[in-house]
Amino acid sequence: MRFQVGDKGSFTKTVSESDVYLFAGITGDMNPAHINEVAMKESRFGGRIAHGMLSAGFISAVLGMKMPGPGTIYLRQTVNFLAPVHIGDTITATCEVVDVIDGKRLRIRTTCTNQDGTVVVDGEALVLPPKE
Amino acid sequence: MRFQVGDKGSFTKTVSESDVYLFAGITGDMNPAHINEVAMKESRFGGRIAHGMLSAGFISAVLGMKMPGPGTIYLRQTVNFLAPVHIGDTITATCEVVDVIDGKRLRIRTTCTNQDGTVVVDGEALVLPPKE
Amino acid sequence: MRFQVGDKGSFTKTVSESDVYLFAGITGDMNPAHINEVAMKESRFGGRIAHGMLSAGFISAVLGMKMPGPGTIYLRQTVNFLAPVHIGDTITATCEVVDVIDGKRLRIRTTCTNQDGTVVVDGEALVLPPKE
Amino acid sequence: MRFQVGDKGSFTKTVSESDVYLFAGITGDMNPAHINEVAMKESRFGGRIAHGMLSAGFISAVLGMKMPGPGTIYLRQTVNFLAPVHIGDTITATCEVVDVIDGKRLRIRTTCTNQDGTVVVDGEALVLPPKE
Repeated sequence: MRFQVGDKGSFTKTVSESDVYLFAGITGDMNPAHINEVAMKESRFGGRIAHGMLSAGFISAVLGMKMPGPGTIYLRQTVNFLAPVHIGDTITATCEVVDVIDGKRLRIRTTCTNQDGTVVVDGEALVLPPKE
Repeated sequence: MRFQVGDKGSFTKTVSESDVYLFAGITGDMNPAHINEVAMKESRFGGRIAHGMLSAGFISAVLGMKMPGPGTIYLRQTVNFLAPVHIGDTITATCEVVDVIDGKRLRIRTTCTNQDGTVVVDGEALVLPPKE
Repeated sequence: MRFQVGDKGSFTKTVSESDVYLFAGITGDMNPAHINEVAMKESRFGGRIAHGMLSAGFISAVLGMKMPGPGTIYLRQTVNFLAPVHIGDTITATCEVVDVIDGKRLRIRTTCTNQDGTVVVDGEALVLPPKE
Repeated sequence: MRFQVGDKGSFTKTVSESDVYLFAGITGDMNPAHINEVAMKESRFGGRIAHGMLSAGFISAVLGMKMPGPGTIYLRQTVNFLAPVHIGDTITATCEVVDVIDGKRLRIRTTCTNQDGTVVVDGEALVLPPKE
């Protein structure tokens, strides 16, 4: 097993309006929270927010691209949505190995933070890393 | 609380190549599993597969659009990736209330099945439904 | 016939720049009015405007998704383009049954308004609603 | 008035699956007719069909790009949806001046045909052409 506790990877992206709109279009999730600025301006969020699963997608990007990387089999993901992501926020998804199970699977802490350091999503992934 | 155990909603979409490619572009998840047909043709999957989080996005579409619907606050989601989704598969995401907690939050079983009835994703959501 | 005069449905979306650009790309309608900000800044519109048919698409979304909903056969649509839609405007498409013809087809008043209540598009649809 | 009865323009595009999916995503029209291949295979259409308003968008492309061209003010459009457009069909939108009203406005016959010559959409536009 070439991975060990503490191994880390991350990916950062500024969330654009077009990201949110395309995500809505692909998934069918046209919740007004994501596409109605007039209604959301009045809400406690102060404007449209990104889909929580978009941040989860950034986690998947780290797992599939960087750590553990291509070849990884994604088994399970838990996500807690802790704070809203607004259009224009810059989100960093970080994945860190917290456990190696049976020398085979990795338990990974997955966290998304915004430009102010606020944790917007946390949770855990379970993956089968690629063979050496 | 106008929701009760057994309440259900679903959303069905045939997954297109453009869905997978746009999802890759939005999330940055350019894992070869999703965008390299040559490599994947040789793999045990027989071709490119969709991102697991795309199926999770269909779950979010049901929760935000249908049941419980607009105004829902998404607190937590667990997803188990059980089987691959191929380009051209028709995925049905179904959400069913399994518990009402403290008369306030809903525990929801979330399942994605393909056109053959194979469960590709299962898991659970925790949400705060919209007020009456 | 489960529909009657006065039945209504609506859909609201804030029109993004990416909506207009993708609509241009899909339809091939690269009219400078939609994609040339420099030329349009000088014009009486003060900037790029959305395609009229994008608003018509929101009408189609209501008819196909909400009222009468999935299974509807779209027979005819008339649209009058009354006022420009700017990028950032929030458009509400509303469809209201105004006549039931021969107990079979529905004549539906179709209206799009912006965030200020200005009617940007009006017209009429003729549809065959889904069977019970 | 530099336009006269008989003036014509056209635009041809093969409709792709991604055209239909992006159109669904932009307009919010996730009618199963457009995105659920399994359900539509069983239907009398034999598969997913394109949004009628996509063909209307091709008409708008001709009016705004070719005849009368950039600067045209679109006043009104009537569309009759006569036959389904399938993914892979090649649609030609043709616009032909049928009347010059008061030396100012043009009444234009608008027709979309598929690769077999079947008229899928017809109708009429009323426009204010650009000044010389």
